[in-house]
Amino acid sequence: MKALQVELDNGRGYPIYIGSGLLAQTELLTRHIRSKQVAIVTNETIAPLYLAPLRAALSAYQLEAVILPDGEQYKTLGYLEKIFDQLLAAKFSRNATLIALGGGVIGDMGGFAAACYQRGIAFIQIPTTLLAQVDSSVGGKTGVNHALGKNMIGAFYQPQCVIADADVLDTLDDRQLSAGLAEVIKYGLIRDPEFLAWLEASMPLLLARDKTALAHAIERSCANKAEVVGEDEFESGARATLNLGHTFGHAIETGSGYGHYLHGEAVAIGTCFAADLSRRLGWLNDADVERIVALFKAAKLPVTPPASMTAAQYVDLMAVDKKNVDGKIRVILLEAVGRASLPVNVELTHLQETLNTYVG
Amino acid sequence: MKALQVELDNGRGYPIYIGSGLLAQTELLTRHIRSKQVAIVTNETIAPLYLAPLRAALSAYQLEAVILPDGEQYKTLGYLEKIFDQLLAAKFSRNATLIALGGGVIGDMGGFAAACYQRGIAFIQIPTTLLAQVDSSVGGKTGVNHALGKNMIGAFYQPQCVIADADVLDTLDDRQLSAGLAEVIKYGLIRDPEFLAWLEASMPLLLARDKTALAHAIERSCANKAEVVGEDEFESGARATLNLGHTFGHAIETGSGYGHYLHGEAVAIGTCFAADLSRRLGWLNDADVERIVALFKAAKLPVTPPASMTAAQYVDLMAVDKKNVDGKIRVILLEAVGRASLPVNVELTHLQETLNTYVG
Repeated sequence: MKALQVELDNGRGYPIYIGSGLLAQTELLTRHIRSKQVAIVTNETIAPLYLAPLRAALSAYQLEAVILPDGEQYKTLGYLEKIFDQLLAAKFSRNATLIALGGGVIGDMGGFAAACYQRGIAFIQIPTTLLAQVDSSVGGKTGVNHALGKNMIGAFYQPQCVIADADVLDTLDDRQLSAGLAEVIKYGLIRDPEFLAWLEASMPLLLARDKTALAHAIERSCANKAEVVGEDEFESGARATLNLGHTFGHAIETGSGYGHYLHGEAVAIGTCFAADLSRRLGWLNDADVERIVALFKAAKLPVTPPASMTAAQYVDLMAVDKKNVDGKIRVILLEAVGRASLPVNVELTHLQETLNTYVG
Repeated sequence: MKALQVELDNGRGYPIYIGSGLLAQTELLTRHIRSKQVAIVTNETIAPLYLAPLRAALSAYQLEAVILPDGEQYKTLGYLEKIFDQLLAAKFSRNATLIALGGGVIGDMGGFAAACYQRGIAFIQIPTTLLAQVDSSVGGKTGVNHALGKNMIGAFYQPQCVIADADVLDTLDDRQLSAGLAEVIKYGLIRDPEFLAWLEASMPLLLARDKTALAHAIERSCANKAEVVGEDEFESGARATLNLGHTFGHAIETGSGYGHYLHGEAVAIGTCFAADLSRRLGWLNDADVERIVALFKAAKLPVTPPASMTAAQYVDLMAVDKKNVDGKIRVILLEAVGRASLPVNVELTHLQETLNTYVG
């Protein structure tokens, strides 16, 4: 097992445990639990796989399992309220602990529920998808979607720890594995060219679920994320670079209906958009863009947007992105392969040209 | 005008401006606004009184007024979502500023909306009731109610400033004025015996809305609140003493249906409960309890609970209070007139005796 540390002020730093067989190491979990009351928030897909062993490991506690339906379309205030309903019915107090057991949706919702329940209770992330292990479980971004925009309602709220057990990836389907690789590739593109080269060489091993390769990808991704979050917890600067491809990606997720694309799939398409825009600014050349597109394709990810969406729809959906200032559209681009830009105002003509390339 | 400062770490301290005619001093407001986008959250009672002048003062901004129905029964996640709907429809970004213009309900909901919208935007409190000016607008407690408990969903989220204009109390009805006095009396009871004696002497002046007396009551209350919050922002210690009477009060508000009692009325009744329990522990004598009850009566506040509620209902409702640990009921009591206790576990027999006195 490896333990990386996310460094934050006021004693709020926390460990990310990475390794195999971690879910069976109950002590990793119990050292971060504050009282007898423990809620496990999970979904209908994950519960049959991992809830029973977790329940058994925590049999000394007053356990409450909240089982939500599986999918991005349920990441709403309405389903968040179901978590509150159950915790209040069980009379859970402010020193209870909430464990989010699942992928990015469950981690975001469980974390936001923990942030708001009685103005904040302890929570622990047990991510069960590659995407959640390498990205969403680390850094304290929590929230739910709104019909008008993804992750528009939420909080910065840090967990007590993150437990990333590579063994749970055995039950992940291929599509979910690829979606996670989109965020892994992102770290290489924005700040770690050496890792990017390793990913290009190792993609066949990763898709074949080689344990050593996967563990290395998780570690390197979490190390990059922890560094960025430690520098800029509330996204006033460098943290925004983690959003490479996300402004376009969120527009695709919202515009095509939550649940149609996996988040990582939309990010892959969005990053290809961002690479194209970077070329129009003269920051990348044709070969750079082709290299990026090729890596996403090698990871079995989509690289072109849904035919159903119009350019006007993208502009409209991107206008509510959290990085915008006074109504201007701002995105993260690439100054080079391996180096992200800070948020830049997008020229509407460039945006239109890029969108025309794809959405005709 | 006086400006008190709430001292918090990480540069999050903020001023409370107290005086007459402050709403006309636009610069007080604009120095805390971050961008062109300004949302005003208010309700149907306050909007006709104060929205037009505020709009006029802020005519240089992109203004969005969110007008909610008036009453504690609308302090729900459902109505909170209406705020998000409107801000997203207007494409408000993360550097927008939200102004809460209203009483405690509007301040709590506006603050919670600001805490969650795009994971946090700037907000300003303009409290329009005495209760909000002396208590709820200061200290960063925000949130909404749940059918199973008051303020159960929320966040600690501090404003940029609080503007307490004593002139707005001219439009407050007598019942609301008295409700505010319940929280004013609380400061005297928990930590300021000199202020308590002044309140006993000045109650007729306060009820007659003498401006000098009211301004003194607001200042002294805010100074007490700012000190307590500065010492213990997240209620791990001394801040809990501000909840004197609130555990019982919340049970009354929830049990009798939100909107039936004003918050201050329920707190007055709850504080009389707490005084009675303190006597049973030998901390207060009969004369102390009579003195406390007499002051609430002088402020035209109720001191006996609704006949409709049973002792079992109180115990059940108090079991979800935020101060509880592992299911034990904990309340703030008085060690003396002018000195609060820290949270104490309540003996069920004592609680039953106190409840029997009132609810038969």
